[in-house]
Amino acid sequence: MEKIIGGIVLEQVAPKEIEKRSFEIITEELKGRTFPADQDSIIKRAIHTSADFDYADNLCFSENAVAIAKEAILNGACIVTDTQMAKAGINKKSLGRHGGEVYCFMSDEDVAAEAKERGVTRAAISMEKACKLEKDVIFAIGNAPTALVELYELIQKGKIKPKLIIGVPVGFVNVVQAKELIMTAGVPYIVARGRKGGSNVAAAICNGLLYQINDER
Amino acid sequence: MEKIIGGIVLEQVAPKEIEKRSFEIITEELKGRTFPADQDSIIKRAIHTSADFDYADNLCFSENAVAIAKEAILNGACIVTDTQMAKAGINKKSLGRHGGEVYCFMSDEDVAAEAKERGVTRAAISMEKACKLEKDVIFAIGNAPTALVELYELIQKGKIKPKLIIGVPVGFVNVVQAKELIMTAGVPYIVARGRKGGSNVAAAICNGLLYQINDER
Repeated sequence: MEKIIGGIVLEQVAPKEIEKRSFEIITEELKGRTFPADQDSIIKRAIHTSADFDYADNLCFSENAVAIAKEAILNGACIVTDTQMAKAGINKKSLGRHGGEVYCFMSDEDVAAEAKERGVTRAAISMEKACKLEKDVIFAIGNAPTALVELYELIQKGKIKPKLIIGVPVGFVNVVQAKELIMTAGVPYIVARGRKGGSNVAAAICNGLLYQINDER
Repeated sequence: MEKIIGGIVLEQVAPKEIEKRSFEIITEELKGRTFPADQDSIIKRAIHTSADFDYADNLCFSENAVAIAKEAILNGACIVTDTQMAKAGINKKSLGRHGGEVYCFMSDEDVAAEAKERGVTRAAISMEKACKLEKDVIFAIGNAPTALVELYELIQKGKIKPKLIIGVPVGFVNVVQAKELIMTAGVPYIVARGRKGGSNVAAAICNGLLYQINDER
């Protein structure tokens, strides 16, 4: 069905059907290309949030990353992110159903003060702060490559063992390198190789995991 | 300067220099391509938030859109957005300096209830709610094409006259059409033509306007 407004033809889709229809279009445009079953909805959700089909190629999953992450969420893992935007975008109600919470320490005054004093990024200090959480942690990094570098070092020092690192910072300075580095850290990961990513993609991947859990129950 | 961690060579850039260095890289990769002076930093900020150079081609500005928007902000205009993510990403401190606030009505209970009752999107109802604000309004639409369609109709009915519409919803259902429509509404716009956009791009454009104001004072 169609509706014409101002000479423009609009497809008539009920509000609750829009997302479903969007995923159908994404699937059509992938022209028969398939992904491992557990990765499929996560890859398509990253495309959905960006309209950028590069995510069909650049998303890298360590072995069983999705299954490990879902089990962690079911056991109450929390999510730590490096932006308030990603925190805003993650479905906190879905996560809360399993006991988890979303944390972002970037705006904390103690983080800002320590970052300034030590001449490092707030993102790096935020990762140190996350080590003090007495819970399982999934990291969702959508902005700061320095967060991934810091996580790599904290993991090497045995200070933290994340259940999953979603490594999708976006940008131009050390972003490519930080993603390559985190894939060698020895912990499960979902990484958007290259420069692309962002808070929206980080949130989309978190929500992809949460919605898989919902759909399976 | 370089630093090597885990065999990966990282560029050593001081935290406060990272954004500046990123914009230098973006400028380099645009290979001498230039934009109108007032659009330059906004286009580059959209690229910066997405690592997607498509924004060099798809961003469309109505005549004097940037100047009109900056004047509105200086006069205390508020920003209404269609996602909590964009709200989280907009520099509220910079906007507040001129008396403006950021609103997002998407999670309001009355909006959800009315949308359900009328079978339309919450985004459409949110736009109606924005008409009741007794302030100048800049709309920053990063998600819902239905928000743009509703704004078009409200403008035609004389119910609202936005100072600027940032029309950068992302997606696959009516997104392309809604953007073409809003460019005919007779109000100033910054639109990312095509499917691409998002809350991150909406926030980046708002911040681009705010930072231009800061830099000029």
